[in-house]
Amino acid sequence: MARHSFLAASAIITILALAQLGTGQIKPRARDLGIPFEGTPGALNSITDIKGIEVGHTTIISGEGKLQVGVGPVRTGVTAILPRGKQTSNDPVFAGWFSLNGNGEMTGTTWVEESGFLEGPIMITNTHSVGVVRDAVIAWRVKQGRPDPSGYWWSLPIVAETYDGFLNDVNGFHVKPDHVFQALDGAKAGPVPEGNVGGGTGMVCYGFKGGIGTASRKLDQNNGGYTVGVLVQANFGRRNQLRIAGVPVGTEITEGTRSSSLAGPLNEDVGSVIIVVATDAPLIAHQLKRLARRAALGVARTGSTSGDGSGDIFVAFSTANPEAAKTTGTVQLTMLPNDRMNPLFEATVQATEEAIVNALVAAETMTGADNHKVIALPQDRLKEVLKKYNRLADRSER
Amino acid sequence: MARHSFLAASAIITILALAQLGTGQIKPRARDLGIPFEGTPGALNSITDIKGIEVGHTTIISGEGKLQVGVGPVRTGVTAILPRGKQTSNDPVFAGWFSLNGNGEMTGTTWVEESGFLEGPIMITNTHSVGVVRDAVIAWRVKQGRPDPSGYWWSLPIVAETYDGFLNDVNGFHVKPDHVFQALDGAKAGPVPEGNVGGGTGMVCYGFKGGIGTASRKLDQNNGGYTVGVLVQANFGRRNQLRIAGVPVGTEITEGTRSSSLAGPLNEDVGSVIIVVATDAPLIAHQLKRLARRAALGVARTGSTSGDGSGDIFVAFSTANPEAAKTTGTVQLTMLPNDRMNPLFEATVQATEEAIVNALVAAETMTGADNHKVIALPQDRLKEVLKKYNRLADRSER
Amino acid sequence: MARHSFLAASAIITILALAQLGTGQIKPRARDLGIPFEGTPGALNSITDIKGIEVGHTTIISGEGKLQVGVGPVRTGVTAILPRGKQTSNDPVFAGWFSLNGNGEMTGTTWVEESGFLEGPIMITNTHSVGVVRDAVIAWRVKQGRPDPSGYWWSLPIVAETYDGFLNDVNGFHVKPDHVFQALDGAKAGPVPEGNVGGGTGMVCYGFKGGIGTASRKLDQNNGGYTVGVLVQANFGRRNQLRIAGVPVGTEITEGTRSSSLAGPLNEDVGSVIIVVATDAPLIAHQLKRLARRAALGVARTGSTSGDGSGDIFVAFSTANPEAAKTTGTVQLTMLPNDRMNPLFEATVQATEEAIVNALVAAETMTGADNHKVIALPQDRLKEVLKKYNRLADRSER
Amino acid sequence: MARHSFLAASAIITILALAQLGTGQIKPRARDLGIPFEGTPGALNSITDIKGIEVGHTTIISGEGKLQVGVGPVRTGVTAILPRGKQTSNDPVFAGWFSLNGNGEMTGTTWVEESGFLEGPIMITNTHSVGVVRDAVIAWRVKQGRPDPSGYWWSLPIVAETYDGFLNDVNGFHVKPDHVFQALDGAKAGPVPEGNVGGGTGMVCYGFKGGIGTASRKLDQNNGGYTVGVLVQANFGRRNQLRIAGVPVGTEITEGTRSSSLAGPLNEDVGSVIIVVATDAPLIAHQLKRLARRAALGVARTGSTSGDGSGDIFVAFSTANPEAAKTTGTVQLTMLPNDRMNPLFEATVQATEEAIVNALVAAETMTGADNHKVIALPQDRLKEVLKKYNRLADRSER
Repeated sequence: MARHSFLAASAIITILALAQLGTGQIKPRARDLGIPFEGTPGALNSITDIKGIEVGHTTIISGEGKLQVGVGPVRTGVTAILPRGKQTSNDPVFAGWFSLNGNGEMTGTTWVEESGFLEGPIMITNTHSVGVVRDAVIAWRVKQGRPDPSGYWWSLPIVAETYDGFLNDVNGFHVKPDHVFQALDGAKAGPVPEGNVGGGTGMVCYGFKGGIGTASRKLDQNNGGYTVGVLVQANFGRRNQLRIAGVPVGTEITEGTRSSSLAGPLNEDVGSVIIVVATDAPLIAHQLKRLARRAALGVARTGSTSGDGSGDIFVAFSTANPEAAKTTGTVQLTMLPNDRMNPLFEATVQATEEAIVNALVAAETMTGADNHKVIALPQDRLKEVLKKYNRLADRSER
Repeated sequence: MARHSFLAASAIITILALAQLGTGQIKPRARDLGIPFEGTPGALNSITDIKGIEVGHTTIISGEGKLQVGVGPVRTGVTAILPRGKQTSNDPVFAGWFSLNGNGEMTGTTWVEESGFLEGPIMITNTHSVGVVRDAVIAWRVKQGRPDPSGYWWSLPIVAETYDGFLNDVNGFHVKPDHVFQALDGAKAGPVPEGNVGGGTGMVCYGFKGGIGTASRKLDQNNGGYTVGVLVQANFGRRNQLRIAGVPVGTEITEGTRSSSLAGPLNEDVGSVIIVVATDAPLIAHQLKRLARRAALGVARTGSTSGDGSGDIFVAFSTANPEAAKTTGTVQLTMLPNDRMNPLFEATVQATEEAIVNALVAAETMTGADNHKVIALPQDRLKEVLKKYNRLADRSER
Repeated sequence: MARHSFLAASAIITILALAQLGTGQIKPRARDLGIPFEGTPGALNSITDIKGIEVGHTTIISGEGKLQVGVGPVRTGVTAILPRGKQTSNDPVFAGWFSLNGNGEMTGTTWVEESGFLEGPIMITNTHSVGVVRDAVIAWRVKQGRPDPSGYWWSLPIVAETYDGFLNDVNGFHVKPDHVFQALDGAKAGPVPEGNVGGGTGMVCYGFKGGIGTASRKLDQNNGGYTVGVLVQANFGRRNQLRIAGVPVGTEITEGTRSSSLAGPLNEDVGSVIIVVATDAPLIAHQLKRLARRAALGVARTGSTSGDGSGDIFVAFSTANPEAAKTTGTVQLTMLPNDRMNPLFEATVQATEEAIVNALVAAETMTGADNHKVIALPQDRLKEVLKKYNRLADRSER
Repeated sequence: MARHSFLAASAIITILALAQLGTGQIKPRARDLGIPFEGTPGALNSITDIKGIEVGHTTIISGEGKLQVGVGPVRTGVTAILPRGKQTSNDPVFAGWFSLNGNGEMTGTTWVEESGFLEGPIMITNTHSVGVVRDAVIAWRVKQGRPDPSGYWWSLPIVAETYDGFLNDVNGFHVKPDHVFQALDGAKAGPVPEGNVGGGTGMVCYGFKGGIGTASRKLDQNNGGYTVGVLVQANFGRRNQLRIAGVPVGTEITEGTRSSSLAGPLNEDVGSVIIVVATDAPLIAHQLKRLARRAALGVARTGSTSGDGSGDIFVAFSTANPEAAKTTGTVQLTMLPNDRMNPLFEATVQATEEAIVNALVAAETMTGADNHKVIALPQDRLKEVLKKYNRLADRSER
């Protein structure tokens, strides 16, 4: 298999990255529908509520109809999360990770575990493009004069994935280094496009169209006023498991689970969820592992039992303590006591739950490889079900 | 502090172990109230639905009124789970464990992790009695001619705990070796007393009286017909977190959260939950870690975010593969493929959720040290709340 | 089995704790024999070179001849390491742990892992006395007005063990709470008695008499001038594995490996080693796990391959950052960069190696239960072997 | 950065894969020099002593002189280890892994940890080529009709690395998919080329030229007659740390440590070591983690203290239990008791030690990027030093 054929195939790829931003915010998000989430979100209800964090998506969509490996249809992409924006490669952040079910890949985790630091961006893509994204992150750092001026030190990028082979020509390897550079260079603060964008483009969640979702929680001043932000690439769950705000939505809305004889993600729990938890609370490495572990509880609230085929891998970082990773002298740190972490745990669980539902609400019906079709979560039906269980909040004030 | 005073104090202890069995089963259990749990329970809806498993409780209750350390009031006990009944010490079971939040103790876990086996009973008691229980388990094995005839090999018992200091004179060290022997020797198959019994005697859960709970799930024959049983010692959660069947019960039922200026477990998330997951499915060590991890998702369904002060530690074992731990030759094993574990994951999550609610439903209002009073979950109020959210199932057939 | 019989038995126990101190320092230590260790030790070549650390031993020796369970012979004890001396219970230290081979017990590790802190002393005893020691540590804290004035919070003590059943009546449960209080109350700075003392009293190492050993390394000022101290309870290894300074001492000195038909630790790798690594370098929790892991490399230098029966469990802590565990506000910390840890890694490996050899050199021939006899490492033979391999250093200057 | 420039650059790459085999076996290996290793090797003293294992190398060498990123000099490659040869992708093996110091990458480990299985080949390359190798392994499986006929399931390949940037244009990304296919397709049983080959081409170890090394141990029939094989990619250690057979070789042979102002790996402990442990003993997943952990003890015997910059990551697998990963019904397994693992632990430590020294002995002096020169371990000097310490064995019989 030659790289040349991939390059040829990619010539027709349409780049949609960030293009949805303008319209994306017009759509209602999950809480706008009246879902009674707990806790208080930040201004954007997004991981970018934390100062300095930038997110970029490259969305790759092309072709229709019958799957031809190396040609398409293509429904995939790359998402980049930069903990400190343009300073990401120069100023590592404390981090920790957790694997709820390890049927997936997140590169770079042994060094996160060992060092306590995350030294670059977090990238999310499809399962079979982890490698190209990883090496491209190194190339991007080298282009920026990094690893270091002598070119001496190495990079161990963080790249995670979920599998989009139901809608995407995953074995066509359509993600190229340029897509990675684009996601990194285009990353920015502000509202984050959700749904069928970036790494989440071709994903399926609880048998509905899934993808990227984000949410945040802001603690009150008594608890430090810190923010927790979550971003998910949601590609997991079986329809009848889905709960929203405790309501058994998945058993109530059964539409669209039989569109294909293969069916795969529409009927089985074969997907994955990658979760990025960020905070500006001054947590150090071992505390961030604790935060990462709480993402599992947010996933559970939506109904999943973390199936065997699921790569449910979570990473958490803190933007506090700039320059904590300097290599000489000693470093002065600020740490939040363990005894003060409970509000952060609650915030993580709540924001994870909402980010997943945001992904479901933002994603739109998509038809991809072999005409596989995955429907969006029907919002009117959702409201009906919430109402049936007396859980539809009045959001007219929003 | 001399042991003598403990012995004197213990002279007045009333042993209630197993005495509640007769009446215990007359009370309705959680699903009898119309809570719409998912999945199909085993015959007893108990960890003892798995053949060979025996459970024994020693319940220690004495004294009333003002706390006098070393005297009382005493509200504590010991629970013993024997994976293979009387053969427990002779025939280890495959096992794995997981710590969701490690603010607690479960002795013996490094050897479970290393060897893949659980070599004796699992004991649960209060935080400050782990030591006496541990050494007493060794003494019990020695009395039975174990570790081995020469007395040469060692024991590394599994003893876990939650903290009952709100109701119990925990610093009085009222658990004695005889209580341990009694729980072990009295262990048996059949219905398991729940609520204020054994290690769970003085526990508090979501601001209601907690304690021991159990539940099970039976897979259909397509999935192997295996059983998963769960036993919990529930002493965790803050009232307003409590969800039952997805319904926000804790925010609806606010009674009894201010009975004391200290309040502690009535208002804060300071407790713990120990969960024992058992199955007869032929899982080997690393697969049982996967099962143990799923208990976290069951906890999450009841609303907890696993607070900093919580020791949420779970152990899973399989009664399949008898004699797997023989020490010579090679061993023939049966293993269930990973690809067939999803029904076991669901069963674990579901049975964990129900076992916790069973503990809440079985426990009765208790007044203990310094007249601290913890009320039982009011069953009529619970039904009202379930009805308000259209989640009250018709259980008239039961 | 009643506690009363234990108390009766203990009436004849002779307490030797700390009594050997005066003479202990007259004996040569390992480097005095001309073993060419690498690196520069601290003033005492002991864990107590780190300011604030106190060590106490209770040594329990009584009886001779045939083993009578509950009577003796008794060859056991308790060792206490207090990271901050009398402030140990009030001011936790950052800590991490590692299990090289988990056939042993170290209680309290789930909370060390979760919280990043060690909240009290580290205790080491025999395998079957872990429980009594654990509960006695809690009683000791309660006596001192701890956990807290209201008696509300719990303790999760760290107690580790190795198995002394070859020389000691381990199933007689001869360690009592008073022995624990004595080790704690008698702990002090200064030289640490080694060999047949405290928890190490009845231990066997590489088929020679083992026990307690300690050593330290002092970094030069370029590397921060920090100290690393190690204390071991050495009860591991098979004779022919023993290497000292790279020299195959165990295959050269074969004396004393056949004193008994049972033989056990004289011929097999059935023992364990507990290692405590301490430093005043400002390392935080995840960095101390790295240090703990390096103890394995020091063990390897002495020849062990960490046998299946060995409980090789290591804990590391830092006395830097006092008051890091306060529970309100935020905490200001100092951290050594990861990039500066290499000298600490080397120091840990070197001090571990020397502490093990110090245990062997300090321990004296002992006869215990059933007249089992374990010989001391013969120092003249050791020097001959070192000389044979051109590794005998000239230590006349010492 | 375009892939095209890489393709242009690669046009001049000389492929040397496997070409050294004929001559490679003429050179003496470490034990031929009289180093007194312990234990009994297999017929080839190689990982390929285990039936079914195949190893392939692609060695990429081109250019000389000044480093031009994207042009060269190139001194790198890829090594492939196929646990079951051509059946590797169809029949997973039980596996476990361990990170001694996680400053490195080994992709695919979360699924090894979760599933207990290794589902494809193990690949080793340079740090910045992990991505291209990973995706190429997927492409190779797809070409072979895998993942499965429908193209539905995903792959999570194992790719590990060490850093060759001292000799190689690591930021030129010279490893291409074809190199990966070549290593995989060319893999075979029989003697394994060592030293400057495959992934080890540009590596440095203890300041000498390093690279690929292998060794094995064969247990006697009493211990089951099993074989343990080890393959290392050795790129770690500081010269003065090096010990061979316990002899301080590194402090005795100081030549060649100052060839460059940059110096890097010649003076500092900045490298890494990847270790693959294989056995035909019937070990299951959790037991293989134990084996992987023992590789650390073998590393320690050569003197390393596992520096901060080192990615010391180990994976172990067993070729026993074919078809253990089938996905339906139940699986019948054979397991070796834990109590019988000690000989395997010793074999692992011994074979790891010898494989590292084999890498040093096989590697030849190399000059690479910017004329950096790394000398081979001088064999005459090595023999002199062994003799000085009375450790030179008579190998005239070989």
